[in-house]
Amino acid sequence: MKRIAIDMDEVIADFHFKHLNLYNKDFSETLTKEDLYGTRLWNIRPHISKEILAYVDDSIFFRDLAVIDGSQEVIKDLSEQYEIFIVTAAMEHPSSFTAKYEWLKEHFPFLTDRNFVFCGDKSIIRADYLIDDSPKNIERFIGQGLLFTAPHNIHETRYLRVNNWQEVKKLLLNDKSK
Amino acid sequence: MKRIAIDMDEVIADFHFKHLNLYNKDFSETLTKEDLYGTRLWNIRPHISKEILAYVDDSIFFRDLAVIDGSQEVIKDLSEQYEIFIVTAAMEHPSSFTAKYEWLKEHFPFLTDRNFVFCGDKSIIRADYLIDDSPKNIERFIGQGLLFTAPHNIHETRYLRVNNWQEVKKLLLNDKSK
Repeated sequence: MKRIAIDMDEVIADFHFKHLNLYNKDFSETLTKEDLYGTRLWNIRPHISKEILAYVDDSIFFRDLAVIDGSQEVIKDLSEQYEIFIVTAAMEHPSSFTAKYEWLKEHFPFLTDRNFVFCGDKSIIRADYLIDDSPKNIERFIGQGLLFTAPHNIHETRYLRVNNWQEVKKLLLNDKSK
Repeated sequence: MKRIAIDMDEVIADFHFKHLNLYNKDFSETLTKEDLYGTRLWNIRPHISKEILAYVDDSIFFRDLAVIDGSQEVIKDLSEQYEIFIVTAAMEHPSSFTAKYEWLKEHFPFLTDRNFVFCGDKSIIRADYLIDDSPKNIERFIGQGLLFTAPHNIHETRYLRVNNWQEVKKLLLNDKSK
């Protein structure tokens, strides 16, 4: 059975939506998703990047992120034909371990603990596919990377791109080689 | 640069020493390491296996385990010639995430967060070597497994065995193929 590794933030968990809303509220701004095309919030407001990054050091920031549309249904379907591993760079935010674990247990109850990986460097992952929004993770992965569209990666052209979970489904459930 | 994945419990962290001491104290017993040859504490006292297993559900159980002799020095030496990843099945005890992370930061300060992996199933790991006390992890690993001697695995004969960190050093620092 082939194996798919799937990132969390911006792929199954809507990181930037919550982050942007918190920022807009606290700093009385009205930035939109479009303002983040090709960049990150902390890059377009460099003078307060420290405050912007501090949001995600809150140990419960990751606990109530919205689920990305379609991810639950499609991953459930995929899990019947593939081994699924959720692989998140949790070591960047050690305080987030428990929140991320509880979020996964709540929203993906059909996956078991053995399907979760919290790591730093994703090049340690052995899988056939990696679905990730980060070009740097795709770059170091041995296997077929699928770049999941997020505002910050919109101009990236080096990797096979999937814009949403329906595209993932179409691509991977039609893969005749597995 | 070749890559070595290294387990935590019974390989760099002395799990059974603390576990056995707690058990002996609480149940007024005098079991020794030799009593655990080829088995586990919860198997030789099956009528109280639930209580015995409950020790490790304490969120701080893993925070003050003793460091296995030689592991710090040898891993430091190895880290000059190999990429080192500490790979622990932390998903078996989700409450242990923070204690395990803090333990690693305290005792292996020369490793960075990117070198840590908390997972369930170690077959997800892509590395050249896996040093682990669990035959089941070695069995599923693609690469060269090295079974690190622990009381429970003493009768296992299927895998290349290392009895201590000096043997690891001798084996891996003499590997001319890297």
